[in-house]
This record gives sequence, structure tokens and C-alpha cells, in this order.
Amino acid sequence: MDNSLITNQVIVQIGLVVHDIEATSQAYAKIFGIEKPKWFLTDPMEQTQCEYKGNPSEARAKLAFLNFGQVQVELIEPDGHSSTWRDHLDAHGEGVHHIAFMVENMGERVKLFEQRGISLVQKGEYTGGRYAYLDTSNELKVILELLEKDKK
Amino acid sequence: MDNSLITNQVIVQIGLVVHDIEATSQAYAKIFGIEKPKWFLTDPMEQTQCEYKGNPSEARAKLAFLNFGQVQVELIEPDGHSSTWRDHLDAHGEGVHHIAFMVENMGERVKLFEQRGISLVQKGEYTGGRYAYLDTSNELKVILELLEKDKK
Repeated sequence: MDNSLITNQVIVQIGLVVHDIEATSQAYAKIFGIEKPKWFLTDPMEQTQCEYKGNPSEARAKLAFLNFGQVQVELIEPDGHSSTWRDHLDAHGEGVHHIAFMVENMGERVKLFEQRGISLVQKGEYTGGRYAYLDTSNELKVILELLEKDKK
Repeated sequence: MDNSLITNQVIVQIGLVVHDIEATSQAYAKIFGIEKPKWFLTDPMEQTQCEYKGNPSEARAKLAFLNFGQVQVELIEPDGHSSTWRDHLDAHGEGVHHIAFMVENMGERVKLFEQRGISLVQKGEYTGGRYAYLDTSNELKVILELLEKDKK
């Protein structure tokens, strides 16, 4: 095994938490001369199996995506329930929340991080895959998100 | 002309302001299993012609770069002089300061932004090119950096 906790070292996404996803989507569309992306609401807890700090969480968010080459910008407007998105927005205001990398074998990857003292903050399922946020704020000054696609 | 203020819509860099570039570089090296990048100090004002909020600025910073596919992570440890880096660090703490795009005709690009009410925050020269930070914090929830390479 190599020394890296992330095998595929390509940043695929930058996630920002915002107060008003409509307004921020509109601003991106205007500055970049592109169509305003449509936001959608994440699935309810029964489907996402969302866990925040080890407990089931009802937190949901409006999400919108914009493509900038290899990297996707994800806009996130969290609801009022406790989540890494909500906490980050309340603590730091609007701005970048995470950078994301693609992984395989999510469970193993998360364990490797935990073995090095970096804890899982939040995880969940979505149609086609799953995500995990790792608390690398102290080390990397940004949260890491791992994304795994379902095998077809 | 197209509607976009940015022609080449590829994110090439994510910049983070940090308190201790050695410690953060070491953390990135450990987590990603890569060699710790060496930081260097930006050039003095006589060379950079740095301007912050329209005035000449003596601000300098230690910089370190890490490559993650198309995207470079730039770690920035600002000195005590007033700069967008220092102000962001003081106001928001450590974390992502900007995302960057490559442009041509920097002067014209900056004017286009200013015509749309987005002001130039800081600019400067470095060996091989120049940069400009635009105050898109309100609109995009992150500062935009434009980078231009000298023509060879």
C-alpha cells in the first residue's frame, strides 16, 4: 500500500455553504455567462441514512452544481438541522466548506483516516453513490470529502 | 464577445491562508503521501509592484504549492502588512481564500469586472506573470484570482 490516504489525487469538487442558493447560483451564472443551475433538495433521512457525528441526522440541503473543467463547484444551502454544513455556516459564514476526491472502498478509506486520528464528521448515501466528510480542518485548513460511485 | 467575465472556465488553483506554512505543508505531505513542498518568500515590493486597495503595499507572503490534477493548492502565510491574505486570515481564520482562473489581457479583464461593480482588491507581478484578486466575496462567496502568464 502506498503512503497516501487518498489514492486518486485529483480534486473533483469544491463545496461552498451559502445562505441563499438562488441568489448565489444567479451570481455565478452572471459572472461566468452560463445558465443558472437548478437546485434540488437532498433525499430524506430514510434514503440518505445520513449520520452526523455518529448519530442519525434529519439534515437536508439544497444543492446546485456548476462545472469548471475537472472541478465542480457545489453550492450548499443547509436546512436548520445540525450538520457539518449548518455548523460551518454558523461558525464561519458563507464560503468554502470542503474539497472532494473520488475513492473506492469507502469504508476502508474512512478507517485509514480514523487510524491516523482524523475523524469522520458526516456521511450519507445518494442515488449512485455515497459521501463522507473527514475532519481535516485542523490539519489541512479545509474539510476533505470522499466520494464513491456505485459499481455498475 | 461572450457573456462571461472569464473565458477559460477551468479552475486552476485553490488558495488557502494559513498561520504556519511549515506545519500545514507537513500535514498535506503526510495525508497525501507526497514530499513536503518547500515554501518561498514572494519578492519585495520593488519587483512585485504590489497594490492593495489601490495603494502600494509592502506585504509579502510565504507560498507553497501542491498539485492535485488540474488544480493546484496554494498555501499562503502572509506577513503582518496589510493585504487581502492578512485581512482574510484575521477576519475568517485559516481556510480557503480564493479560486483562480487563467486569463489573457489582464488589464482589460479587470476593467470588465469593474464595469460590473466588482472591484480589484490586490494585484502584483511575479516572475513569469501577474495576478489580480477580485472582490467577489459577496457574489460568489469566494475571492476570484485572475492569473496571466507572460507571452514567450
